[in-house]
Amino acid sequence: MPLDAIPVVVVHSATNQIGDNAVLSGNAPVLLHEIAELTRKLLDSGESSAIDLRALPLTPADLDWLREALGQGQVAATLEAEGESTLSETICPGVWWVTHHNENGAVASEFIEVTFVPELLKAHPDDVRIGLEHLDLLISDLSNDSVST
Amino acid sequence: MPLDAIPVVVVHSATNQIGDNAVLSGNAPVLLHEIAELTRKLLDSGESSAIDLRALPLTPADLDWLREALGQGQVAATLEAEGESTLSETICPGVWWVTHHNENGAVASEFIEVTFVPELLKAHPDDVRIGLEHLDLLISDLSNDSVST
Repeated sequence: MPLDAIPVVVVHSATNQIGDNAVLSGNAPVLLHEIAELTRKLLDSGESSAIDLRALPLTPADLDWLREALGQGQVAATLEAEGESTLSETICPGVWWVTHHNENGAVASEFIEVTFVPELLKAHPDDVRIGLEHLDLLISDLSNDSVST
Repeated sequence: MPLDAIPVVVVHSATNQIGDNAVLSGNAPVLLHEIAELTRKLLDSGESSAIDLRALPLTPADLDWLREALGQGQVAATLEAEGESTLSETICPGVWWVTHHNENGAVASEFIEVTFVPELLKAHPDDVRIGLEHLDLLISDLSNDSVST
């Protein structure tokens, strides 16, 4: 499933104006409340959500605070596409910190995903079908080799 | 879902006696056929399977051959539990090479999993519930702190 199919929640923050990047704006704790609500929704209805961290008025200090509060869980994954994506489960299972990089390695977008497993980690049936064709071809080549030798 | 809940397929190999560990036994190509069949089953019925590589008469050379044939796909994940598990998607999406290590870092078991996403990467609802309690506690502590300051 493409990322844009996941409903993105906009969290209303206490302030939209941030001066100093090194200080806490007070917005990060608001996010914890939102993450807890989205986790409750996941458990109640199975519905996944994502919070676009770049769309929020968060300072680097806010992001550091949030990262420390959520911690690093048991699962960490990378996906190599046009740029690398990292998907790290936090100490709260079902809450994932997802960072997408562009081809130059710069952070292109950053999300908190609340889901049992991020869609990006799932193989799409169309891709599985293409992979199977590749496998069948490989097997066919092996058979031809053994016939010809 | 625990790993033992995944049906494990036993592949009948051409030979059960392997002498030299450095040579190909001829069993690895047989496995490719089995993987293709399991991938077809995944697409047709959604049913996941696993092949226990340690239960098969495969030489290290066989495993190397198989690893090269299946290649490295876009997704790679690690799970840190009592030992580390690595879950690497092959170039055939839906076919995963899964290695479990014990606490000393030695390989404890090795599987080919044929599944859209390995169960180990999914957060279990019970764990999500425990994580939510942790989050609620954290939020409660923050509220108390802001009241007391």
